[in-house]
Amino acid sequence: MKKYTSGIRRFLLGALLVQSVASFAQQATWIYYPGDFEIWLSNKMQNRRTERGSFFPPFWKLDNHYVLINFHKVLDLSAAEEVDVYVEGEYNIKLDTRLLPGKPARITLPAGKHVLDMKVFCQDRVPAIYLKGKTFVTDGSWQVTFEDKEWIDATGKVSDQSGTIWQPAATGGFNNPLQPPSAYRLPVTPAFAVKKEQVPQGQLLDFGKETFGYIRIHGLKGKGNLSLYYGESREEALATETCETLDRLELNQPQAKDSVLPLTKAFRFVQLQPAAGVSYDSVSMLYEYADVKDKGGFRCSDEEINRIYDVSKYTLRLATREFFIDGIKRDRWVWSGDAYQSYLMNYYLYFDSATVTRTLLAQRGKDPVTSHINTIMDYTFYWFLGIYDYYRYTGDSSFIKLCYPRMQSLMEYCLGRRNKEGLMEGLSGDWVFIDWADGLSKKGEVSFEQLLFCRSLETMALCAGIVNDNKQQQTYNQLATDLKGKLFNWYWNNSKQALVHSRINGQPTDHVTRYANMFAIFFNYLNEQQQQGVKKQVLLNNQVPAITTPYMRFYELEALCALGEQAYVLKEMKDYWGGMLNLGATSFWEEYNPAKKGAEHYAMYGRPFGKSLCHAWGASPLYLLGKYYLGVTPVAAGYGTYTVTPALGGLKWMEGEVPTPGGNIQVYCSTTEIKLQSPIGTGTLRFKSKSKPASSEGTIVAKGNQEYELVLEKGKAYRVKYTAL
Amino acid sequence: MKKYTSGIRRFLLGALLVQSVASFAQQATWIYYPGDFEIWLSNKMQNRRTERGSFFPPFWKLDNHYVLINFHKVLDLSAAEEVDVYVEGEYNIKLDTRLLPGKPARITLPAGKHVLDMKVFCQDRVPAIYLKGKTFVTDGSWQVTFEDKEWIDATGKVSDQSGTIWQPAATGGFNNPLQPPSAYRLPVTPAFAVKKEQVPQGQLLDFGKETFGYIRIHGLKGKGNLSLYYGESREEALATETCETLDRLELNQPQAKDSVLPLTKAFRFVQLQPAAGVSYDSVSMLYEYADVKDKGGFRCSDEEINRIYDVSKYTLRLATREFFIDGIKRDRWVWSGDAYQSYLMNYYLYFDSATVTRTLLAQRGKDPVTSHINTIMDYTFYWFLGIYDYYRYTGDSSFIKLCYPRMQSLMEYCLGRRNKEGLMEGLSGDWVFIDWADGLSKKGEVSFEQLLFCRSLETMALCAGIVNDNKQQQTYNQLATDLKGKLFNWYWNNSKQALVHSRINGQPTDHVTRYANMFAIFFNYLNEQQQQGVKKQVLLNNQVPAITTPYMRFYELEALCALGEQAYVLKEMKDYWGGMLNLGATSFWEEYNPAKKGAEHYAMYGRPFGKSLCHAWGASPLYLLGKYYLGVTPVAAGYGTYTVTPALGGLKWMEGEVPTPGGNIQVYCSTTEIKLQSPIGTGTLRFKSKSKPASSEGTIVAKGNQEYELVLEKGKAYRVKYTAL
Repeated sequence: MKKYTSGIRRFLLGALLVQSVASFAQQATWIYYPGDFEIWLSNKMQNRRTERGSFFPPFWKLDNHYVLINFHKVLDLSAAEEVDVYVEGEYNIKLDTRLLPGKPARITLPAGKHVLDMKVFCQDRVPAIYLKGKTFVTDGSWQVTFEDKEWIDATGKVSDQSGTIWQPAATGGFNNPLQPPSAYRLPVTPAFAVKKEQVPQGQLLDFGKETFGYIRIHGLKGKGNLSLYYGESREEALATETCETLDRLELNQPQAKDSVLPLTKAFRFVQLQPAAGVSYDSVSMLYEYADVKDKGGFRCSDEEINRIYDVSKYTLRLATREFFIDGIKRDRWVWSGDAYQSYLMNYYLYFDSATVTRTLLAQRGKDPVTSHINTIMDYTFYWFLGIYDYYRYTGDSSFIKLCYPRMQSLMEYCLGRRNKEGLMEGLSGDWVFIDWADGLSKKGEVSFEQLLFCRSLETMALCAGIVNDNKQQQTYNQLATDLKGKLFNWYWNNSKQALVHSRINGQPTDHVTRYANMFAIFFNYLNEQQQQGVKKQVLLNNQVPAITTPYMRFYELEALCALGEQAYVLKEMKDYWGGMLNLGATSFWEEYNPAKKGAEHYAMYGRPFGKSLCHAWGASPLYLLGKYYLGVTPVAAGYGTYTVTPALGGLKWMEGEVPTPGGNIQVYCSTTEIKLQSPIGTGTLRFKSKSKPASSEGTIVAKGNQEYELVLEKGKAYRVKYTAL
Repeated sequence: MKKYTSGIRRFLLGALLVQSVASFAQQATWIYYPGDFEIWLSNKMQNRRTERGSFFPPFWKLDNHYVLINFHKVLDLSAAEEVDVYVEGEYNIKLDTRLLPGKPARITLPAGKHVLDMKVFCQDRVPAIYLKGKTFVTDGSWQVTFEDKEWIDATGKVSDQSGTIWQPAATGGFNNPLQPPSAYRLPVTPAFAVKKEQVPQGQLLDFGKETFGYIRIHGLKGKGNLSLYYGESREEALATETCETLDRLELNQPQAKDSVLPLTKAFRFVQLQPAAGVSYDSVSMLYEYADVKDKGGFRCSDEEINRIYDVSKYTLRLATREFFIDGIKRDRWVWSGDAYQSYLMNYYLYFDSATVTRTLLAQRGKDPVTSHINTIMDYTFYWFLGIYDYYRYTGDSSFIKLCYPRMQSLMEYCLGRRNKEGLMEGLSGDWVFIDWADGLSKKGEVSFEQLLFCRSLETMALCAGIVNDNKQQQTYNQLATDLKGKLFNWYWNNSKQALVHSRINGQPTDHVTRYANMFAIFFNYLNEQQQQGVKKQVLLNNQVPAITTPYMRFYELEALCALGEQAYVLKEMKDYWGGMLNLGATSFWEEYNPAKKGAEHYAMYGRPFGKSLCHAWGASPLYLLGKYYLGVTPVAAGYGTYTVTPALGGLKWMEGEVPTPGGNIQVYCSTTEIKLQSPIGTGTLRFKSKSKPASSEGTIVAKGNQEYELVLEKGKAYRVKYTAL
């Protein structure tokens, strides 16, 4: 365990430095219209999917950036200044409404108060500007609009009743004038196969573990074809007729050259089949990765859990790219339900807001809304939930302000699709997904969808409050209350102690599934008695159909953890994720059914290698271990207040760090000792103890029933002696 | 006058040919999503404006094409066929839902019934495809969508409840596989100056008349700057500090080369100022033009009117480009109110539907609607009116079907901006334009806007009927009726015999302007008594502020023509348009005030050469002479029925041709004879005669009061002897 104090000092020093620098020289950065880079980049990203060499784009509407943007800044310089101008697109510059001649690459700004406007048109990339003088720069203090509505009358007078809606300009850390947003690329680093073998038609390379990037062929020459077959498994790379991804090169290259293939692929194995007359010296790869840092961490007394944690980290690392994507072999798209889980894991590992907001904005796209996000009803709701959680973990209200109008129009779309009962039911073009599960009914009004809809309405109310839209806040709250009433009146089956799966033709079915019930637990929609009923009659009931995707295992185990079943969940984790490790997994899968054998595990979607062996939703132990074992959870937005409720679940000890907007909360817990330190907020440690506990700092308060609480102040180190139950 | 029969024979032969060819070999053409090429092209076009060398884009939202399109075709070939594939963008091909490998440039389609799908992604241009086999081609029978919503489940099964909304694919006459829509360019032809003179700082070229295109400099060489100053007038080209457009080249070209400047300009005069060290041999231009043919024509006994007609033709020719634009020096944008007049002129000259629909689609852009078209309230309404007229003249209901959803959402925007009285009043960001006129009040609820709004609602009702949306048809009709009621209850001032200009604070003002009153006449909203009241108290009343733009002169003269004042209007035309000709105009102007002198005429917008000397709205005699002198007007859509009401207005004779969807209606009229022939519909000739008239064909019916009617059958030539009153 690291010393606490050094981290804190680093944090405080950092904050001071940022502030003192800011006061005399701003960081120039490329600026653009908020949300537009994300949409443009996701178009690029999502259209990079291929299936056996064929282009494979999404089946939902792709949106677009605004092609014409006005950038606006009121300046007040103490002295005139030379400013360099970099622009993506065709542009003009107006100083105090007067057009400067031509397209200057450098301008002189006069001292005093002036208004600078730039209009930029760019069809194929996002209009963007970068200005840098001695003190004057482009940054988030600029304003932007996609229509200034500033006309002049016949005398040349500018309209006096402007309808311009200005937005704060977006920035994305593009601080190099020669690397505009359109030049954005993930970094790469060379990597090498750990094993090579000859196979009947060519050569098979094994990179030792699941990986992602560009294949690089050294000394390639000759005339003819070279085929590459990628495999997440050895079987897949050898199955030239059914492997999911491949490349076919047509060569006419008399001189040997090094070639990097143009599209990234996911693989552990690659088989190369050169035609006679084609040869190469060797093959390596450029591993491509998102440059986000691990901040959180977890270690414990159980080495299998530690391995599960590490492989989860690697799985999320691979599926964290320009956006949080589903899987790296396919689909490589910004699926909202998949990304939602990555957000939650992210809060316990990277705490990287940029990837979260980038993904949320890309998913949302632009108005008009013509379908659910990714066409899936539940995925629309996860999008709202993603914003709810983002605010809770980061406290970033500026993003809520940016998003609120986009949230409103998406919610209008949902409200407009309610049936006469006010419930959501799949209409033409709506995909009711829930989970991959054989025979799962999507008919009628599914309880799970109403539950997510209800939390989405609560999210709208929360965000309406943040932007001071009090009228809408009331409306959304009322809608949520009404819907919750219907949910319990119509779906709660008292004899089954469960929410039933659906209503069909206005009548509740008596079919029980896990989905709505487990979400109802961690949404805190159930009373104590209902919770215990659901636990016994649903979660721990083998008669209720089992879940076979890590996707829904995530929520199932979360629900059990929320009910204090950490010991049970630890065992499940070891069985399920440990099961994949025992089968040689180097990253976690899209689906895992322990009953299957050998290469059966690789099949899905009716294809022998259809399954993705590196799927973000497989990495949920990151979240479970951080939130429900280390037990760190924000209460007020951005960790203004938070709780720490360590739960060993049978472990002898555990330690870890949970990132927050102010730095890491550090937790150590054994059966006799809890150590804690936080650089942010006011925390409450909750724990049980057989003996009377003692703390090095603060005052432990007994809550009865062997429960204790200790208030944690920012910056102080706490060391609690206790005896675990 | 041409022989009638040859034209008819040509028409019938053409129709037969088209049909017989169609039955065994289709014309392959590039196809794309409807409306998207228009938006893409207008972005390109409208961002070509410069002001003194600086980029000068519009101040309203520019929209975008859909970047990902699915092209869909059910085929049934009698034999297998090889098909060549051309695509704009990244693409795949699916045959019967199976992806073909890679990106084939040629495919083999099997015999029998199959389904072909192509997905194309293109960010910078409009996704488009061109396929051509022996019989199988891309054409308007394909379908397209921007989101197919076709997902598969975990077993690989395609969703069974598709939400795909298919549209017929758009075609635009792009029949060459090597010239995709993105390669669209207007044609050019060389043209030469008629006069060159040395001026103090360089050389002044006179091209003899207003023109448009690219300056071409022959044998250009040297190092240093070369400046070009463009002038619609000699004064402007010499005024290097205030001319509206210019080019500055920086040369470093030791070898002499021919250079074509990259951007088109409007000019009659060009001054070249080369720096010492820069030289050239000569200067010419590439005249750029839209390749639409004159179909209509007009000649009469008055040579001044003939000159006015010819200069009007040239003015409209110059302002007819990729779209109907306002003026060629500036703004070169698709202003809806300006284009509306070009549409009307077009029906009497080119009858070119493509330029009308292209302009309407470009103006409308995409949802969501965030402002009035061009930000101007009246221009939104003119857009609806443009559709009303387009249908009336062409009978093209397929365009109405395409446009109807876009009409609905724009009308929703308008309805959402009504005040509590249900009237339209300028809100923040709304430009209430009406006309360029000093001191014209835009305050409160302007009668002119309500009148246009009412006709827009009538247009919605008409189009709802065409698409069989009967419920909405009723709604729109009711809205129109209610609004018309308010218009006459609240704005009609009986003592003034006029609609007053506006209501302010709920009270009608007593100020009378011409605008609403003249539109009320040709909208046929007034009873006979009101018509005569308006004529006397408004139109022919010098106390009511005069109109000084050809823009509103268009409607003023139309109203007078509608009241039978052709003799008065002919004199006005000779005074006003003749006045410009007397000042040396080679095209008609944006504004003309006979009271101004010399270079005063060139000033506008507070700039000495701000006025455009070639503005489409200056060409209205084309429309007036065709519709109100030759007197040809469609009654049923597309000239199913029509009227011909010749009015000499003091001319000794006139003759002309009016284009229709079926060819030209030919009219000759003198004081003693009327000759007529039409290749389409059923017409009614209406005329007055002092003597009892006689016709070579058909039966003249006396209507009393010296009025007569003759029914005109398709294809027959009529020769009527009569005596003009």
